[in-house]
Formats: sequence, structure tokens, C-alpha cells
Amino acid sequence: MQTIGKTFEEIQIGDTASFTKTITETDVYLFAGISGDLNPAHVDEETAKTTSFKTRIAHGALVAGLISTVLGTKLPGNGTIYLAQTSNFTAPVHFNDTITATVTVKEKTERKRVILDTVCTNQNGEVVIQGEATVLCPRLPKTE
Amino acid sequence: MQTIGKTFEEIQIGDTASFTKTITETDVYLFAGISGDLNPAHVDEETAKTTSFKTRIAHGALVAGLISTVLGTKLPGNGTIYLAQTSNFTAPVHFNDTITATVTVKEKTERKRVILDTVCTNQNGEVVIQGEATVLCPRLPKTE
Amino acid sequence: MQTIGKTFEEIQIGDTASFTKTITETDVYLFAGISGDLNPAHVDEETAKTTSFKTRIAHGALVAGLISTVLGTKLPGNGTIYLAQTSNFTAPVHFNDTITATVTVKEKTERKRVILDTVCTNQNGEVVIQGEATVLCPRLPKTE
Amino acid sequence: MQTIGKTFEEIQIGDTASFTKTITETDVYLFAGISGDLNPAHVDEETAKTTSFKTRIAHGALVAGLISTVLGTKLPGNGTIYLAQTSNFTAPVHFNDTITATVTVKEKTERKRVILDTVCTNQNGEVVIQGEATVLCPRLPKTE
Repeated sequence: MQTIGKTFEEIQIGDTASFTKTITETDVYLFAGISGDLNPAHVDEETAKTTSFKTRIAHGALVAGLISTVLGTKLPGNGTIYLAQTSNFTAPVHFNDTITATVTVKEKTERKRVILDTVCTNQNGEVVIQGEATVLCPRLPKTE
Repeated sequence: MQTIGKTFEEIQIGDTASFTKTITETDVYLFAGISGDLNPAHVDEETAKTTSFKTRIAHGALVAGLISTVLGTKLPGNGTIYLAQTSNFTAPVHFNDTITATVTVKEKTERKRVILDTVCTNQNGEVVIQGEATVLCPRLPKTE
Repeated sequence: MQTIGKTFEEIQIGDTASFTKTITETDVYLFAGISGDLNPAHVDEETAKTTSFKTRIAHGALVAGLISTVLGTKLPGNGTIYLAQTSNFTAPVHFNDTITATVTVKEKTERKRVILDTVCTNQNGEVVIQGEATVLCPRLPKTE
Repeated sequence: MQTIGKTFEEIQIGDTASFTKTITETDVYLFAGISGDLNPAHVDEETAKTTSFKTRIAHGALVAGLISTVLGTKLPGNGTIYLAQTSNFTAPVHFNDTITATVTVKEKTERKRVILDTVCTNQNGEVVIQGEATVLCPRLPKTE
């Protein structure tokens, strides 16, 4: 059993948290198998050379996964229910880019939803994904 | 080198494609490592038993990855550039659920974006993710 | 439920399809674990340096797997039953080689078997595996 | 550095070796990503239910990989060069079947090739793959 994250009452507008990981070829190749997405942009270097990206890139959906990592393990944390996500894929992620996913609380709604800005940046500070998450905060076991 | 998918000129409103996969414990555990999302809801059965879902569930971001599979490998297909995705996570995905991701073209914009309805359903026909993708279609190598 | 591939009646001599993937260290290391083939030629760089290949190479059986990908997902496609395969391993596959597996129908037998030429080439057009597959085409659900 | 396997001079007709592994869902799901073969027969339980096999089965190419394990790590062993393989897929392999790959030397040719019978059986003794391998035995480092 693990302790829960921040409840709706505890979480505050402006609260922020992040998680950083270098995205490797291994991540991309495993994700290709998990998702079934063996698009040549991700796994065929010869075809990828001919694209505007010039080389294989990571799946956007893989990188977006780092956002759920922050939401589910840091802020709000354990017990969070993920309701919705919007993502704009603003720049490609190359193998060995180090990506930081950051979430920042921007709204607490009347229906007890929490809305967070979600952004992923690479090691050069360039935004690669920008969007918004909607979550339900963890609830205390006995107060339901 | 691989042939490209449907161009903006070829793709039509109402075009649809899908991909189906049974989501297993293996998928969830590998995705936990790739994303870093080791939220107990996904990898801690004892804690998961105490949640409203009663057992471990798959990551929403993993399941959303099936949508990018259809976009990048079927419709529009090879050469697609993924610009944006919205996802509402409407029901949990349990281990061994068989998920079908279906995309359907609903709009071709003046700026040559294509907007598709994206829906993931389980083996009982229940919608688990509902949303919308925005993509750029593949372009013929010489027409740029 | 997914639509089936080409039936025996539909498939024609000369029909061809291919699949391309860059074979990485990740692929080789995962396949070593799956197959149990931890031959130093694949996973021990120091020993591999002393061989005629001068470095670690991919497993032939891994590369041959790309052939089954084309058969099972493209031609004949979903529903194909794989009866037999012959493979001659004609050149080594190095880490990061981009391999294209191509199958071409060469014979339709009286007993409704389909025989296909199967060849894998690298990014330089060199043949790395050459052989022949025997399959049963998918059958329509109700015609049996 | 590792010691080499049996040389052409040392190996004898009738020599035999085997390797056994339980093939799991994890093996099949990883191999799907490595090979790109996400055929519904392997990863879509709902579609697989409607086939003659009634459930998902392992990739034949994955199971055939166990043969190369025996050749490369046991007989002839380290230093073996794999020239050719024929495989007849005689029965499906289900998740959690325990497969034994056995190779038996049947011929030493004038051109110093060794030909081995290769057979994979399941836990019930049923033959799932039957075929023949052609290899070059390891050579002593200094005698070349």
C-alpha cells in the first residue's frame, strides 16, 4: 500500500512538478512493438533519411507518456484519475534527446476537476509537446 | 524505401481505418519502464485492489498509442505528420482487454490539415478513449 | 475483428510486397533473451572482434522474422497459415543495417498452397537471406 | 573471449544437443515488435478466437529461433556459421507451451558443411517444427 497524492483540497493553482528522461532507441523500438506503430519514421533509417526530419524520430505518443508519469506519480500523484489530455506535437524528438515533462496546475473547477498545463521540452529548452491535462485528484479512502 | 500513404488530395471525408491489439501485462510493464509511470494503479496489485478499479489497469497513454499506429501505418499512412491529439479517457482498460483504435476523417481544412475522429473501444464495444487527431498528410517527394 | 488478406483465388503469380526495418542492438539483445541464443557472435563484442565478421552481428533467425511479417500482415496478409520456410543466410547483418524483406508469389499449387520467393536485402542492395515460403492463403469465414 | 565449439574434425554423425524454453506471452509480444509482425493471430485475441487455432499463437519464426540457439551455443557451438535452414511448421505453438529444440548431426559434406536434423517439440512430444540446418563448424584461430 502506498500513500496517496494531493487531494483536491490540498492542491493549489501554480503547483508544479516534472520528470526527465533521455529517450533512447530502445524506448522507441519497444514502443513500436507495444503500440504496433512500425511506421518507417520510427524504425526505418533509410526511409527516414528522406523525410523532413532526416532521421528516425520517437513516437509522439511515447513522449506524451512522460506527462502521465508526472500526473500519476508526482502531482497530484498516486490515486489520480486521468480524464483527458490535449497535446500539440510542436517539434520532433530524436533518439537520445533528454525530455522534461512539466505539469502546472492552472484551474480547479466546480466539479472538482483539476486542469494542468502540460509541456515537454528537450535538452535545448525547445518545446516538443504542449497541451493540457484534466484529472480527478486522489481521495482519502474513508471520506468517500 | 517504402511507399507513402494517402495525400491530402486523395484522402476523403468518411475514410476510416482501424487496428486491434490485446493489451497485456507485458505491454503495461514495458510501458511503465519506457514512460517512467510506475503509478501503483498500473504496477502494484495490492494498492490497485483498493481503488475504484479493483485491479491494475493499463496506462491511458499506452492505449492512446494505438491511435498513432492507425494514423502512421494505415490512414493517412506512411509519411503522415502528427500535429495534435485530444483524448478523453472514458473507461479503464484492463489487462487482456482487446482494444480496437479506429480513425475516421471528418474535416479537411484550408491550411491542408486533416482532422480525424479517433476512438478506442474494447471487446465489448465500450468506448475507452474518444478524441480527435490533427495531421498533415504525406506529400509526394517531388511536389514540395 | 480485422479483415482478411488475399484468398487463394485472389492472389496472383508475380504479386509482391515488402517491409523495411533498421535492425538495432535493441532488437538483437531482446531476441537473444527470447531465443536464448547468447552466442558471443551476437552479444560479446570482444569475442566477435576476433571472428571473420569483426563485430557483433544480428541473428539470422531474427532477420528471417521480417519475412513472416510481410506474409502475415501484407501478402497474403491476415489469416495466412505459414507452412514452411527455407532460408540461405548469404551475408551477415550488422547492427543498424536497414533490411527490406520482399516476398513475391511464384507458384500456386494444385493443393492450394502458395509458394513465394523470399529475399532480404540490406541498405546497399546486398542479399542477406534468400529462400522460399509455403503458405495457405486466408479463407473467407463462411466458405469453409 | 570464449572457447570455441566443436570443429569439423571433432563433430560426429549422431551428435545431438537440445535447448528447452517455455514460450510466453512476453516472448510473443516482444517478438512482434522486433519483427514488426503484429498479425492478429499473434496479438489480437478476439480475432484469434475466430481462427482454426481458437486463440493467439506464437510466431513460427520465434520458435525457429530456438534452433539457432542450440547450433550457436551447444552443437557445434561458439564460432558456428549458420548457412541455411529449412523449417516445416507442423503444429501451432500456444502461449506457455514448453518447446524443446533438438539438433542431430546427420551428414558431413566434402565441402566441410555439416547438416543437422532440427526438430522442435512441445511438452506433449508433438513436433511443431521439423527441418534441417546447414552450418560451418568453428575453426581454430591459428589454423586458418
